[in-house]
Amino acid sequence: MKAEIIAVGTELLLGQIVNSNARFLSEKLAEAGIGVYWHTVVGDNPQRLADVFRIALERADIILFSGGLGPTMDDLTKETVAEVLRLPMEKDHAWEEALREMFRRFGRPMTANNLKQALMPAGALLIPNRNGTAPGVFLRHESKYIAMMPGPPREMEPMFMEDILPLLPSAGGRIILSRVLKLSGIGESAMEEAISDLVIQQTNPTIAPLAKQMEVHLRLTAAADTKDEAAALLDQTEARLLERLSEAVFARDEETMVDAVAKILTENNLTIAVAESCTGGLLAHWLTNYPGSSRYFLQGVAAYSNRSKLDLLGVNPQLLREYGAVSEPVALAMAENIRQKAGCDLAIAITGIAGPTGGSPEKPVGLVYIAIAAPGGIICERFNFRGNRENIKERAVMTALNLLRLYLIKQNR
Amino acid sequence: MKAEIIAVGTELLLGQIVNSNARFLSEKLAEAGIGVYWHTVVGDNPQRLADVFRIALERADIILFSGGLGPTMDDLTKETVAEVLRLPMEKDHAWEEALREMFRRFGRPMTANNLKQALMPAGALLIPNRNGTAPGVFLRHESKYIAMMPGPPREMEPMFMEDILPLLPSAGGRIILSRVLKLSGIGESAMEEAISDLVIQQTNPTIAPLAKQMEVHLRLTAAADTKDEAAALLDQTEARLLERLSEAVFARDEETMVDAVAKILTENNLTIAVAESCTGGLLAHWLTNYPGSSRYFLQGVAAYSNRSKLDLLGVNPQLLREYGAVSEPVALAMAENIRQKAGCDLAIAITGIAGPTGGSPEKPVGLVYIAIAAPGGIICERFNFRGNRENIKERAVMTALNLLRLYLIKQNR
Repeated sequence: MKAEIIAVGTELLLGQIVNSNARFLSEKLAEAGIGVYWHTVVGDNPQRLADVFRIALERADIILFSGGLGPTMDDLTKETVAEVLRLPMEKDHAWEEALREMFRRFGRPMTANNLKQALMPAGALLIPNRNGTAPGVFLRHESKYIAMMPGPPREMEPMFMEDILPLLPSAGGRIILSRVLKLSGIGESAMEEAISDLVIQQTNPTIAPLAKQMEVHLRLTAAADTKDEAAALLDQTEARLLERLSEAVFARDEETMVDAVAKILTENNLTIAVAESCTGGLLAHWLTNYPGSSRYFLQGVAAYSNRSKLDLLGVNPQLLREYGAVSEPVALAMAENIRQKAGCDLAIAITGIAGPTGGSPEKPVGLVYIAIAAPGGIICERFNFRGNRENIKERAVMTALNLLRLYLIKQNR
Repeated sequence: MKAEIIAVGTELLLGQIVNSNARFLSEKLAEAGIGVYWHTVVGDNPQRLADVFRIALERADIILFSGGLGPTMDDLTKETVAEVLRLPMEKDHAWEEALREMFRRFGRPMTANNLKQALMPAGALLIPNRNGTAPGVFLRHESKYIAMMPGPPREMEPMFMEDILPLLPSAGGRIILSRVLKLSGIGESAMEEAISDLVIQQTNPTIAPLAKQMEVHLRLTAAADTKDEAAALLDQTEARLLERLSEAVFARDEETMVDAVAKILTENNLTIAVAESCTGGLLAHWLTNYPGSSRYFLQGVAAYSNRSKLDLLGVNPQLLREYGAVSEPVALAMAENIRQKAGCDLAIAITGIAGPTGGSPEKPVGLVYIAIAAPGGIICERFNFRGNRENIKERAVMTALNLLRLYLIKQNR
């Protein structure tokens, strides 16, 4: 079974939006064992739309449209498909009534245009739209499966998952499942060296490294006859990778560094406070993104001015004079002082130069000191991060969280 | 001149990545007056790639490939295009030497595979790749313009802008220019009511409203013979829209709310401090994202625990007992106290319930008080934001910045 995804919309061809629908549908079809062989994008032009559909009818078994189902004159997907297949359009009375009811409820007048949305190619199944006014269409034509869905992702995605996918033939292809392992504190080349033999030997699952801004990802992709078999293949390979990379792997799939750190803090009943200079509140923001963070996060200080480092953090003015705000002694003092002031178990302090200005030969842009204070002692590390202002802020926060994570793992051993 | 963009790569068909190259190329081609009529995605399969290319040769004048130029056996774009056009492959000796030199410099052994990257279809122009090892290819074939570029955006984008685009025919289509006006503090329907007559009358530029998470956008799209003419059309329409929407428009295109606020603060030599509860440092983070923010931002406090509201912000404990942490009196105290403690011109305080837990019938999740303290006085507003934890944090910060922006505009009148 070969599938083609056709997105209809001039805004895609003008580059105003990205074709996220094709990505979503491809992922879900792969997981269901249906192979996607083509994506096509075409504008709101009946002639070109008809041509594209005719090509798809020749090469694909499953054809999924998104877009072009709305009430305006530009919306032509249903009409064009019906014309190519020589099917008359018929009114769906139940949907017409549902439309009238919807407009009554919203207190908006319904224009004649909107009635177009109740017209269906003869023999097609109307797929109700729970998040908009344009219904979807499902159609068997000879051996082909044809579905049309609205363009907005929040309408298309639930319609596809709940109503269209169950109508597609599950036979045929193998299930394809992916899993992402996320690594921090290790470079892409060091990682490749550690696992290159596995990457080369391994064909199912495949292992694909990907260097991200602040983390390295390993994408494992397995093919099998069932979802369980594919998951088991992924589990085996993940276990082999963890043997070699163990501590560098901080999360899987959608999980973030904050999730990983929040889990350790919550499970161990630990509280934390943070003192930030160059990261300006980003660390506090990340730590408070996790629902329930008030159980572990007590306070954060973004001490940008020297005065605030004295007032809010009680940093000894002589340290500032002698070593400057961006220095190991100041980072250590910030961490220890906020830990005591807040009365918590742990504290992180970050001081550095985010740029683009403010650097010097001795203290260049990107220089960052990160200190972690804990009951068992206090540590400080020095880093040189690259990138623009936002990159440096994010790298510093990511690195600080990873330092804390590794520290806590060591403590718990 | 009709253009088609063909992206080659199985990872696109598996939904592992989104086709951002097609979006980028479409936008740049539209700006150059070249109409894109089709996007196609196909996998690393020579037969299907050849078929897709033959279809493109029939319908398009300009065919742009991205992907499939690397050193592995899967990378077949060049070979397939050459075969369809019946062109022999020839070695480019200069690029072979450049490749050897690159590998010498990196201290890595060059495998035979890599030499494949120095093979070119006869008569094609080799386009050097300054950000990778796979060069691009440009080819005139009969009346057609054909370009092949590497898949990674950081290699493809500069290659297209600097080397490929200047080789494409500029004649033909009209220039298409877009501009986005960003609005805050106004709902989509209120905005539509204010400008619906313009939206309907207007055909060039067109005006398309788009409701975002926290802002409303108006996209103006103009078509003209030259870039200057298109820009003038956009200017005229923007002026008419500003007459009606004036203060709600906070920025254009890439500009953000923080940029707009930072500009006002810097131009007026104002300093600011912030006290945050439920937004947990996000406001401080946003305000310090702007390069040079140390000129206006003095300090931020993320006071999550009640103790930190007393210690760091000097909030009267009786206020906390009597009204609770999420209340107008506490918001006012937080703002006024941090303004005095930090010794700055302005202060913003935010206190609320970000959820998902912690709400009650009187104080539901999403309830947020925002106070602004200034030399001329202090104001506080109450809001009920919807959404998940992150949405509520972001809406609160966005709203706080917009309140400050409107306050400062009023002051400057």
